[in-house]
Amino acid sequence: MKVGILGGGQLGRMLLQEAPNYPVETWVMEKEADCPAAHLCHHFIAGDIRDFEAVYTFGQQVDVLTIEIENVNIEALEKLEAEGKKIIPRPSALKTIKNKILQKKYYQDHQIPSPAFVITQNREELKQHMHLLPAVHKLGMGGYDGKGVQVIRSEADVEKGFDAPGVLEQLVDINKEIAITVAIAADGSHVLYPAVEMIFDPVLNLLDFQLCPADIPQQALWKAEAMALAVARNFQSPGLFAVEMFVDKKGDVWVNETAPRVHNSGHHTIEAHYSSQFDMLWRVMLNYPLGSTAALQPSMMINILGAEGHRGPARYEGLEEVLKMEHAFVHLYGKKQTAPGRKMGHVTLLDKDKTGLLRKAMQVKQTLRVIS
Amino acid sequence: MKVGILGGGQLGRMLLQEAPNYPVETWVMEKEADCPAAHLCHHFIAGDIRDFEAVYTFGQQVDVLTIEIENVNIEALEKLEAEGKKIIPRPSALKTIKNKILQKKYYQDHQIPSPAFVITQNREELKQHMHLLPAVHKLGMGGYDGKGVQVIRSEADVEKGFDAPGVLEQLVDINKEIAITVAIAADGSHVLYPAVEMIFDPVLNLLDFQLCPADIPQQALWKAEAMALAVARNFQSPGLFAVEMFVDKKGDVWVNETAPRVHNSGHHTIEAHYSSQFDMLWRVMLNYPLGSTAALQPSMMINILGAEGHRGPARYEGLEEVLKMEHAFVHLYGKKQTAPGRKMGHVTLLDKDKTGLLRKAMQVKQTLRVIS
Repeated sequence: MKVGILGGGQLGRMLLQEAPNYPVETWVMEKEADCPAAHLCHHFIAGDIRDFEAVYTFGQQVDVLTIEIENVNIEALEKLEAEGKKIIPRPSALKTIKNKILQKKYYQDHQIPSPAFVITQNREELKQHMHLLPAVHKLGMGGYDGKGVQVIRSEADVEKGFDAPGVLEQLVDINKEIAITVAIAADGSHVLYPAVEMIFDPVLNLLDFQLCPADIPQQALWKAEAMALAVARNFQSPGLFAVEMFVDKKGDVWVNETAPRVHNSGHHTIEAHYSSQFDMLWRVMLNYPLGSTAALQPSMMINILGAEGHRGPARYEGLEEVLKMEHAFVHLYGKKQTAPGRKMGHVTLLDKDKTGLLRKAMQVKQTLRVIS
Repeated sequence: MKVGILGGGQLGRMLLQEAPNYPVETWVMEKEADCPAAHLCHHFIAGDIRDFEAVYTFGQQVDVLTIEIENVNIEALEKLEAEGKKIIPRPSALKTIKNKILQKKYYQDHQIPSPAFVITQNREELKQHMHLLPAVHKLGMGGYDGKGVQVIRSEADVEKGFDAPGVLEQLVDINKEIAITVAIAADGSHVLYPAVEMIFDPVLNLLDFQLCPADIPQQALWKAEAMALAVARNFQSPGLFAVEMFVDKKGDVWVNETAPRVHNSGHHTIEAHYSSQFDMLWRVMLNYPLGSTAALQPSMMINILGAEGHRGPARYEGLEEVLKMEHAFVHLYGKKQTAPGRKMGHVTLLDKDKTGLLRKAMQVKQTLRVIS
């Protein structure tokens, strides 16, 4: 089977680390020939994944096509799908998710609780919706990794909003942020990974700490699982869907956002779960039975971000110390250049004892620094 | 760091699956450009690993050089080492192990118990040592994967012996066959993996079933661990050493053979142990602290061999059924052609219950067939 991946970042890299277990020939398209995934596939094609012709030509060479980033040319994928190519996830799901306005409407249309919102066409319009504050303004198209999101607490913040179509969404009184990954096979069968609990870095707004299983009440977990499944299934598309949710202080659950692909919130599954999210996506793409999402042990995942004030060729400070730690698994992404807040790697810790996990995670965070 | 691997088979393939976790640039040399490891490295060089010039030129491009098969040009490695290149394992260890006569002498010189033996120069000489029977005749140079070994039970079997320098070794009254992998770092520090217990296929003499931890008496385990460590340390070389041993019916332990590299007997460590043998070799090569050899769970590893009577393009019968099994990890080696007894992949099973492991292993063996 010939499988193509649009995008050659760390998600593609980790996906390709699992590929050799299966009978598959791999293709990657990405602009930069020294991207993290380029050397791990059978065929690397230098090309712009946002370009219609590039994506269309690339797609014609393979049997199955997937993405590791939403920011791809969807028209080309639609044409390929119309011509019978298997695209995972389906372009219709990508299209909905890529545009935050359509994504919010999708939750609304399927009666999936998500925070109250209005659609705004420009910055000026924000002023009509001050009753929603405090709220978050999300850019409709083009936001990624914490960019394209602004918190609007008062009228004075309105100028931070985007002067382009977007969504103004009421802030939830968040108790916990969680994520559940759902895998959907071509025949509609599905599996859910255990919920993970995320701790965001308040400055960079990049996920950088994550506990599995999430420590939330059983009632909230049941709601979250039902909601994640509803989100994933209504796309009517095979694939992996990482559904990020809020649990508020009353125990209600709200969908925040969905990623239609392998996702940062599933990195711990490489070592902590029987079938990792990457293994699972291969199973979906190659039409094999879905794997087991059970955990071998509780885990903690720490994102390794480029240190503040460092930009240039990456060096890893404290790597040896972390490699000495018991039950720590280090993953570096092979990015030659570091920049403040750039995702440069992650570390997964396994431990039956959750307090031990927290203590060790703090230690990793304080020890391993990516500097220039 | 630039690391070169001589050989591009399944061991190189699995080694390269772990490489992306570390900051390393990888090079592979192998004759066939469609070998299992070729597409997983930064730089693939088509070349003969037994050729002096090819190995010497290849080695000059990298900082560290390792092997995934003993059958390489050792003279080139010696020259590279003399010029200051880091070779893991050291050529002296490779030279000793590659020749079964030198390997037996090595055990003798270091007072490591191994079965009684004589060195024979040709087939005719075997007749002078009939008192050793039943025995096994091992070809000095060139044996691999069960080839180059013949059992001599009586004088009538002498003609099965090799008409070339070799070792005639008394058969041990085997109770169990076990293996222990030892990792030695550049600074001499070491770790041992738990002993595994092997079950050989009596026809093909290829390891194809393996339990971890081995089910042997504590006294025998202690002996085996001390012996494995003595074998590994006396090479005075960093690297991984898989020491295969017999436990006889009296509980005595004898060294059979050693492999100075990642080895079939360590495949289960990918999922069942914190630091896999492949991860561990990267740590040794990159001069990082050694990893944890502890097991997450007991495991069983089943080699997937090409089915009898099938030779040609490989097809995998029963793959979906095995992928449906709980806690089974499938690894296929991407070999386009199958042949009877050829190593085409392996499956690792995790289970706290050893009886469950045995039952599931039989099921895998009966289900997954590689046919043409």
